Amino acid sequence: MFLTRTEYDRGVNTFSPEGRLFQVEYAIEAIKLGSTAIGLKTKEGVVLAVEKRITSPLLEPSSVEKIMEIDDHIGCAMSGLIADARTLVEHARVETQNHRFSYGEPMTVESTTQALCDLALRFGEGDEESMSRPFGVSLLIAGHDENGPSLYYTDPSGTFWQCNAKAIGSGSEGADSSLQEQYNKDLSLQEAETIALSILKQVMEEKVTPNNVDIARVAPAYHLYTPSEVEAVISRL
Amino acid sequence: MFLTRTEYDRGVNTFSPEGRLFQVEYAIEAIKLGSTAIGLKTKEGVVLAVEKRITSPLLEPSSVEKIMEIDDHIGCAMSGLIADARTLVEHARVETQNHRFSYGEPMTVESTTQALCDLALRFGEGDEESMSRPFGVSLLIAGHDENGPSLYYTDPSGTFWQCNAKAIGSGSEGADSSLQEQYNKDLSLQEAETIALSILKQVMEEKVTPNNVDIARVAPAYHLYTPSEVEAVISRL
Amino acid sequence: MFLTRTEYDRGVNTFSPEGRLFQVEYAIEAIKLGSTAIGLKTKEGVVLAVEKRITSPLLEPSSVEKIMEIDDHIGCAMSGLIADARTLVEHARVETQNHRFSYGEPMTVESTTQALCDLALRFGEGDEESMSRPFGVSLLIAGHDENGPSLYYTDPSGTFWQCNAKAIGSGSEGADSSLQEQYNKDLSLQEAETIALSILKQVMEEKVTPNNVDIARVAPAYHLYTPSEVEAVISRL
Amino acid sequence: MFLTRTEYDRGVNTFSPEGRLFQVEYAIEAIKLGSTAIGLKTKEGVVLAVEKRITSPLLEPSSVEKIMEIDDHIGCAMSGLIADARTLVEHARVETQNHRFSYGEPMTVESTTQALCDLALRFGEGDEESMSRPFGVSLLIAGHDENGPSLYYTDPSGTFWQCNAKAIGSGSEGADSSLQEQYNKDLSLQEAETIALSILKQVMEEKVTPNNVDIARVAPAYHLYTPSEVEAVISRL
Amino acid sequence: MFLTRTEYDRGVNTFSPEGRLFQVEYAIEAIKLGSTAIGLKTKEGVVLAVEKRITSPLLEPSSVEKIMEIDDHIGCAMSGLIADARTLVEHARVETQNHRFSYGEPMTVESTTQALCDLALRFGEGDEESMSRPFGVSLLIAGHDENGPSLYYTDPSGTFWQCNAKAIGSGSEGADSSLQEQYNKDLSLQEAETIALSILKQVMEEKVTPNNVDIARVAPAYHLYTPSEVEAVISRL
Amino acid sequence: MFLTRTEYDRGVNTFSPEGRLFQVEYAIEAIKLGSTAIGLKTKEGVVLAVEKRITSPLLEPSSVEKIMEIDDHIGCAMSGLIADARTLVEHARVETQNHRFSYGEPMTVESTTQALCDLALRFGEGDEESMSRPFGVSLLIAGHDENGPSLYYTDPSGTFWQCNAKAIGSGSEGADSSLQEQYNKDLSLQEAETIALSILKQVMEEKVTPNNVDIARVAPAYHLYTPSEVEAVISRL
Amino acid sequence: MFLTRTEYDRGVNTFSPEGRLFQVEYAIEAIKLGSTAIGLKTKEGVVLAVEKRITSPLLEPSSVEKIMEIDDHIGCAMSGLIADARTLVEHARVETQNHRFSYGEPMTVESTTQALCDLALRFGEGDEESMSRPFGVSLLIAGHDENGPSLYYTDPSGTFWQCNAKAIGSGSEGADSSLQEQYNKDLSLQEAETIALSILKQVMEEKVTPNNVDIARVAPAYHLYTPSEVEAVISRL
Repeated sequence: MFLTRTEYDRGVNTFSPEGRLFQVEYAIEAIKLGSTAIGLKTKEGVVLAVEKRITSPLLEPSSVEKIMEIDDHIGCAMSGLIADARTLVEHARVETQNHRFSYGEPMTVESTTQALCDLALRFGEGDEESMSRPFGVSLLIAGHDENGPSLYYTDPSGTFWQCNAKAIGSGSEGADSSLQEQYNKDLSLQEAETIALSILKQVMEEKVTPNNVDIARVAPAYHLYTPSEVEAVISRL
Repeated sequence: MFLTRTEYDRGVNTFSPEGRLFQVEYAIEAIKLGSTAIGLKTKEGVVLAVEKRITSPLLEPSSVEKIMEIDDHIGCAMSGLIADARTLVEHARVETQNHRFSYGEPMTVESTTQALCDLALRFGEGDEESMSRPFGVSLLIAGHDENGPSLYYTDPSGTFWQCNAKAIGSGSEGADSSLQEQYNKDLSLQEAETIALSILKQVMEEKVTPNNVDIARVAPAYHLYTPSEVEAVISRL
Repeated sequence: MFLTRTEYDRGVNTFSPEGRLFQVEYAIEAIKLGSTAIGLKTKEGVVLAVEKRITSPLLEPSSVEKIMEIDDHIGCAMSGLIADARTLVEHARVETQNHRFSYGEPMTVESTTQALCDLALRFGEGDEESMSRPFGVSLLIAGHDENGPSLYYTDPSGTFWQCNAKAIGSGSEGADSSLQEQYNKDLSLQEAETIALSILKQVMEEKVTPNNVDIARVAPAYHLYTPSEVEAVISRL
Repeated sequence: MFLTRTEYDRGVNTFSPEGRLFQVEYAIEAIKLGSTAIGLKTKEGVVLAVEKRITSPLLEPSSVEKIMEIDDHIGCAMSGLIADARTLVEHARVETQNHRFSYGEPMTVESTTQALCDLALRFGEGDEESMSRPFGVSLLIAGHDENGPSLYYTDPSGTFWQCNAKAIGSGSEGADSSLQEQYNKDLSLQEAETIALSILKQVMEEKVTPNNVDIARVAPAYHLYTPSEVEAVISRL
Repeated sequence: MFLTRTEYDRGVNTFSPEGRLFQVEYAIEAIKLGSTAIGLKTKEGVVLAVEKRITSPLLEPSSVEKIMEIDDHIGCAMSGLIADARTLVEHARVETQNHRFSYGEPMTVESTTQALCDLALRFGEGDEESMSRPFGVSLLIAGHDENGPSLYYTDPSGTFWQCNAKAIGSGSEGADSSLQEQYNKDLSLQEAETIALSILKQVMEEKVTPNNVDIARVAPAYHLYTPSEVEAVISRL
Repeated sequence: MFLTRTEYDRGVNTFSPEGRLFQVEYAIEAIKLGSTAIGLKTKEGVVLAVEKRITSPLLEPSSVEKIMEIDDHIGCAMSGLIADARTLVEHARVETQNHRFSYGEPMTVESTTQALCDLALRFGEGDEESMSRPFGVSLLIAGHDENGPSLYYTDPSGTFWQCNAKAIGSGSEGADSSLQEQYNKDLSLQEAETIALSILKQVMEEKVTPNNVDIARVAPAYHLYTPSEVEAVISRL
Repeated sequence: MFLTRTEYDRGVNTFSPEGRLFQVEYAIEAIKLGSTAIGLKTKEGVVLAVEKRITSPLLEPSSVEKIMEIDDHIGCAMSGLIADARTLVEHARVETQNHRFSYGEPMTVESTTQALCDLALRFGEGDEESMSRPFGVSLLIAGHDENGPSLYYTDPSGTFWQCNAKAIGSGSEGADSSLQEQYNKDLSLQEAETIALSILKQVMEEKVTPNNVDIARVAPAYHLYTPSEVEAVISRL
């Protein structure tokens, strides 16, 4: 009685008879092809760690940016289409700067996340800022504001959730299980670094080095680890 | 003589030979996949209760918002696509704030509901504010104004009804039957809380806890229950 | 030599080889699925009566509005998609208010009907106010102006006719026959009320009560009957 | 080598390999489904006569307008989609009023006809005033200006011709033959009335009455006949 | 390896693998269905002659305009869709009037022809003035300017050529052969009239009369022949 | 695994799986149907020669313009769709005039060529000036500026190359071979004229006359040869 | 259960069920058809070398530009569609000039690369500056700013990476392997020139000459080698 699933999945913004939006589901698949990223929230701050996939020894590792600063107090890790992520991050940077300018105070982490998702939700709407397809990217947004540290996870449908710990990308399934086993609310920031990197190590196919992972913390300010700081975390594994 | 149903259901805004709009019907299906929400009107005020579906222990339960405040005197529970609901609620918040600013008094619950449905109706029209597909969400809008407490139910076609009690989402069929049996106009607010939660308990697959349900009342002001207030209702079951 | 009918019926605004516009014809089908509404014109004024289809005992009957006021001297009954009807009525309310403001006098019933149909005709034209599909609704417009009482009937093609009596909706065929038998120009308003409700009773599947029918008159001002006024008419059957 | 005809006929504005525009031809079919209208030009003025098709005894015959005034000195009879005709006539009324206002004199009949056809020609062009499909209507435009009386015939392609006599609609074929037999340039206006109505009588399936035909003249001013004036013509048959 | 021709011919502005634009070729077919028109250039001026196809004796022959004035010194004969031709001629009239107003002198015949073709070329471009399909009309443009008399021929692709003599329309093939035999540069205007009409007579299926042909000259001013002037030419055959 | 070529070639601006743009390739085919044009650069200046294809003895040869002046110091020969070429040349004329007006000096030949190609590249972009399909024309642009004489060749993809000698159109393959054999950088302008015409003679199917070829030089000013100048070159063959 | 790959690859901006964007992947194929280009970064500066593919001896080699200057301190080598590359380079030139004008200092190499990719990413969005398909070109961007020399590589998806050495185009696979073997960070600029050209020689099918390769350096200013400078590098091989 219904058409099969395949007939509905090319219209970017059309419901199937079961009420599904396939283009969003396919964008989520794009993320499953992406590199793994992990976030953990502690009382001291939030840790982000990502796998970098350096495909050639001639590539400058520092130019493969999968953790980016949004504002002094907010950073994010990404998985999926890098160019899409850059558009979202650039949008968020403008929003947070405008907020500082207009109100003389930093934007809260939730408002920043909401602003990102508002843009993501409006794909296919023909707006000046929106895309004609869903953004093929998930973000882990780490921040610190008047409510303390927080970690948000967004998906291509424009939905977001607050988490204590979360993994995204191709290795997310195994990493999420490990996080549930190892996470507790009383972790120190240093313990969180170690857990993040040890889980990343399990899902990566090659040896972990300062070249093929990035680590950042927001505690309370955003800081991307230097190669020697990453080396220090590796040495603790 | 007619094409079969399946040939008409992909044009977002096209009548089938029987005069049906299939994309709206499929959006309604999206809601049947959603979590269950229940509303009850009493003389003292309106109670809303929702199931939260916490998919991971690492998720922050308070960030899964399925009951949201629109204005001091209006709140709503939702079922379906969360991101769509947020767009509608944000629109309603702007409308109610504008009304307060322009007229120096709160917007009535019916006008607020009408404003929400005007936006929902115009899908596929290419307006700046409208979507290119129906909003995949149903709302239970609870409010209190000069006419006393009221409860409205909206669907993706932009239609709304005033109700004494109503359930939406995947468990709505069973929940509606239970509501018809147990509802009467003389319920106290406390009795309404108990009925809402006991019905929600029947349709949920897991044990009810302050983590996986939310309760709110508008009586006459909007108030989202704290975990301990939810715990108190659970203990009365 | 021609394609079969089915190949032409999905373009919203395309002629078939026989010169037909199928999307309009399908919108007319939407009305045949709607609840029945009846209008009768007498020398004293016009009577409108509608079936309300209360699908749940928890629904507030007064919120199922199928008769609406357009201006002091004009009201209308509708059959088909409620949300579409609301858009048309809202448009007509703005038009009549503007007319009063610009000319200091009420808009005539015919001009109001024409304004409604102008909007209905322009579906598929991409205007700001128009819809991308035909409006799936028929209206019975009752009014009283310098030419005395009048009753208009509109359909989704944007065409209108003046009538002495008319039924629309799922029971319209039988109701129209009954109207032709029972109508004469010298009916009193009270007789018209009785005829309207007795015919409605024949086409409804349940017992007539003040909850599941609405009656209104324009004589010369619009008045929606209270439950007790409806009860009084029922008691005369 | 060519596709069959059927492959070209749905694009509203696409040539077939033989150089035909099928959507225009199908719109012309819409007119063959319409009621019959007849026009005759005499030295004294022009006569228009139309069949009205009163589908229900409860319909107000005067509200079935198939002859309409454009300006004091111009009227028109129509066959096809009534709502389309109304749009064209409304456009022509604005044009003639603007002309009077700008130049202080009436617009000529030919200019008025040209203005109507300019609008009709631009279907499918996405203009603000134009339609997305051809107008499904033919008009007989009767007028009187400094060149004396004139009668124009327009079709959905935006083409027009000046005629001495012309029939349009479902009975046009037979009526045109009769007109060729009976027409001569020296007819009096009264003789023209009689011929028009006698020919209309032949193509109508029911008895001619003041209720189911309309007659108008432009001689030199537009005048729609009252029922008794129509009765007088009928009595002369 | 290539699709057959038929797959490319519906996109209004798409190349086939052989580099052809089929919609333009089909528009050219529309002209082959049209009435025949002939133009001859002499040293004294240019002669245009057209077949009128009076389909009914009740049609006013003078209203079937297939030769039209563009400016005092330019006229044109047309074959194909009359309404399309009117749009082009109207455009050219505005251009020549603007030129006179801006420069105080008449526009040259070549510039006028170029302006017409610029409009014709831009079909399918979505401009305000352009059409969504090619113009289905060919023109013979006769004029007289500082370079003496000239005759241009335009086709639906927006291309134009200057000619000494040219025939367009359904009888153009035979007429062109006759022109090549009979034309020489030293013809008098009167001889050109006679040749034009005698060739037209060969391709017409009925007897030539002042009612079914039109003749005009530009020598140096545009003049459309009166019926008696046409009669005089006929009598010379 | 891939679709065959034919499935990708109708979208005007879509890549095939091998990374090809078929509509551009088909436009290039349009040029292979065109008349042959040849350009040669010498130290004294550039020579252009084209075949004119006079299809009827009644056509005015001078109106078949396949060599056109862009500015005093730039001319171009074309092959393909004449009307497309006119649009490009007109665009270039405006650009060079604007340049003279703004900077008080002639535009360089390369800048002029770049401006032409910028317009050609943007087909399918919906700009006001651009086309909805590729321009079906190639140009040989001959010019003389501060860098001395130069010859450019453009194709429908918006790409251009500087050449010493180049042939385009249906006979280009054979003509290019002959050019490679006969060309050297020390040719005099007169030798270049003779080579151009002798090669054109080989690829033309009829006898070369001043009527069916055009020659122009830019040395350093643009000059289109008079019939007697062409005759002089022919006599040297 | 899924459609095969081929069904998703024609929508320019649609995800396949596996989350892939095929039009971007096909644009990347366009580059694999392009000529080879190589870049190497040394401490002294960056070297770019490209193969030129001179298809005819009559082509002016200097007009085949595959290395272009963006600003004094930035140049780029390209592979793929030349006309697309020109659009991107022109955009970058305007951006760097605007930056100098607004801030009185050169734009950094990374910001310039980001600006190029922002434009490339927005294909299919209907912006004024963006294309309706992905840009079919890859760039090697060489620059020198306050951070010293840098080399960036961009692809059609709008993504970019910083590299020490990189090859693009049809011979990129073999060239990249050779680069990995021969590259080290302590190469002198002269050694880099030799390596670039020796690798290019391996992948080219013809003898390397100053006519069929171009070399440029940014050290710290952009300089395109003269034929004799290229000859000097060739002589060192």
